[in-house]
Amino acid sequence: MLKLGIMGYGNLAKGVECAIKQNPDCELKAVFTRRDPEQVKVRTEGVPVVSVDNICDYKDEIDVLVICGGSATDLPKQTPELAKYFNVIDSFDTHATIPEHFAKVDAVAKENGHIAMISCGWDPGMFSLMRLYGNCVLPEGKDYTFWGKGVSQGHSDAIRRVEGVKNGKQYTIPVPEALEAVRNGEDPELTTRQKHTRECFVVAKEGADLKKIENDIKTMPNYFADYDTTVHFISEEEFNANHAGIPHGGFVLRSGVTGWDKENKHIIEYSLKLDSNPEFTSSVLVAYARAINRLHNEGVNGCKTVFDIAPAYLSPLSDEELRAHLL
Amino acid sequence: MLKLGIMGYGNLAKGVECAIKQNPDCELKAVFTRRDPEQVKVRTEGVPVVSVDNICDYKDEIDVLVICGGSATDLPKQTPELAKYFNVIDSFDTHATIPEHFAKVDAVAKENGHIAMISCGWDPGMFSLMRLYGNCVLPEGKDYTFWGKGVSQGHSDAIRRVEGVKNGKQYTIPVPEALEAVRNGEDPELTTRQKHTRECFVVAKEGADLKKIENDIKTMPNYFADYDTTVHFISEEEFNANHAGIPHGGFVLRSGVTGWDKENKHIIEYSLKLDSNPEFTSSVLVAYARAINRLHNEGVNGCKTVFDIAPAYLSPLSDEELRAHLL
Repeated sequence: MLKLGIMGYGNLAKGVECAIKQNPDCELKAVFTRRDPEQVKVRTEGVPVVSVDNICDYKDEIDVLVICGGSATDLPKQTPELAKYFNVIDSFDTHATIPEHFAKVDAVAKENGHIAMISCGWDPGMFSLMRLYGNCVLPEGKDYTFWGKGVSQGHSDAIRRVEGVKNGKQYTIPVPEALEAVRNGEDPELTTRQKHTRECFVVAKEGADLKKIENDIKTMPNYFADYDTTVHFISEEEFNANHAGIPHGGFVLRSGVTGWDKENKHIIEYSLKLDSNPEFTSSVLVAYARAINRLHNEGVNGCKTVFDIAPAYLSPLSDEELRAHLL
Repeated sequence: MLKLGIMGYGNLAKGVECAIKQNPDCELKAVFTRRDPEQVKVRTEGVPVVSVDNICDYKDEIDVLVICGGSATDLPKQTPELAKYFNVIDSFDTHATIPEHFAKVDAVAKENGHIAMISCGWDPGMFSLMRLYGNCVLPEGKDYTFWGKGVSQGHSDAIRRVEGVKNGKQYTIPVPEALEAVRNGEDPELTTRQKHTRECFVVAKEGADLKKIENDIKTMPNYFADYDTTVHFISEEEFNANHAGIPHGGFVLRSGVTGWDKENKHIIEYSLKLDSNPEFTSSVLVAYARAINRLHNEGVNGCKTVFDIAPAYLSPLSDEELRAHLL
């Protein structure tokens, strides 16, 4: 049995708890929290909720600790700190600072004889794998990544900070014509505006100036100004009924050429359509937790990403079974 | 430089030659043939064509030998035989006998301190990877593989063996409604007939009985009887103008659920649209030749498949570059 711990108990952690239930070779040993453990109720029977202050008591009881914090402030501290005591895995997704995060985590993990995986999930994660495989098998070509249709947490937060907004949710949507042009092998050069549109569903406070809210959203720099943005005002009831979920997804495409005179075109497309962004990410985390535990048992230490792990390590099946049934 | 040799000089081998030209870290050292070497003319300047009888002379000059034979009779003999002298890679694609081929090649490779990769390409190959990743990240779900639209060599050969047929080509086509049902998360149970249709373009011999040809094709057991098959009779000119290529492709889908009560649905889809089946396969072979050469330099021996190789090994980029640009 693979003994797992979960650090944190937000949406991602709850997804990990569900994923552990779906994987018969996995067992949840404890959930660690910065809150008062008495106030946190987990769903798996018999699993203790433990204050993070006492996490070191569990250092010999857990094979891999799944760290479910945010990338902005939690993970840059938690992952290197906890890699002192545990094999760890996180879903750090600030692409620009991955090299820095990697270096810090790698040093601590190696010093303490642990394995630590960072940036695991779907982007970074499965999408990164597709970019890498695509680039290697079609070295002359172009990469495209589209996100959506799905909820962007950052953009939804930005809407909710606008004056007069009670609640809001933002969907990122790939532009169908852009996607079609890539699929057709046209290799378009696409601007930010040509790749994605943004659709906002807003519950306004009573008496708020709707025109002003709409304008404040559409002209917000970085978040919305560079996109074609639509704003819908809806009632709280409609919001709760139709926009409670956290769906997401997207597309990774590689368009490339082969042949003596580059006369043949090839399109590789990978797409995800996810009802629950955090639960899918969690499922990827648990599969890779299995993988790094095996690698650690083989004597491997240090920081790893999806690029460093042979696919067979993710599966509970033997190499013989994999070759017979999935190859 | 990665020094490569090619065994054989058919369509796949010609594709490997093109792929080597596209990968600046790769160099073609020699092409080996069972034919009279004087009769084989390769495209890369300065590359010798050598009789397979003298292949052992090259055993210290080649890092990886790419074996481009057929799966029916060539590879089951050639791959184990040549793994005595070289690191080798093949595209063995008879799914049912992969375990047997693996065992034979593994024994020879280990005995001689070589690495040998089998069943590399797109199916088996990239499609196998997608099935494995899909099963690991969504352990509760269903797998679907569709092939096409593309030319099936085996079915085209079968058509050409029918009495009265001068030339013929067969396209395998996924049924759009079946694909749509899977994408919609309906998890359909699909019969052979519901998954693919077969479209045949036939040039008949002068005076041949067209009705009989059509009937002979449509009722052919194993090949066509279980499918909705269409037969088009065309002129030799039209055949040469519109059906000279070897396009192929297909779709791998994984449909799965997550959540405490399995309430959330996820669809993973991978697709290939290939102008040239052999050239795409060749490009995958060259990327994995790079990978196994590196593994061999690290001391790894024995038989490997796509499941055993960490993605980073395929790329000419460093781990740092990969993390900075593709993760």
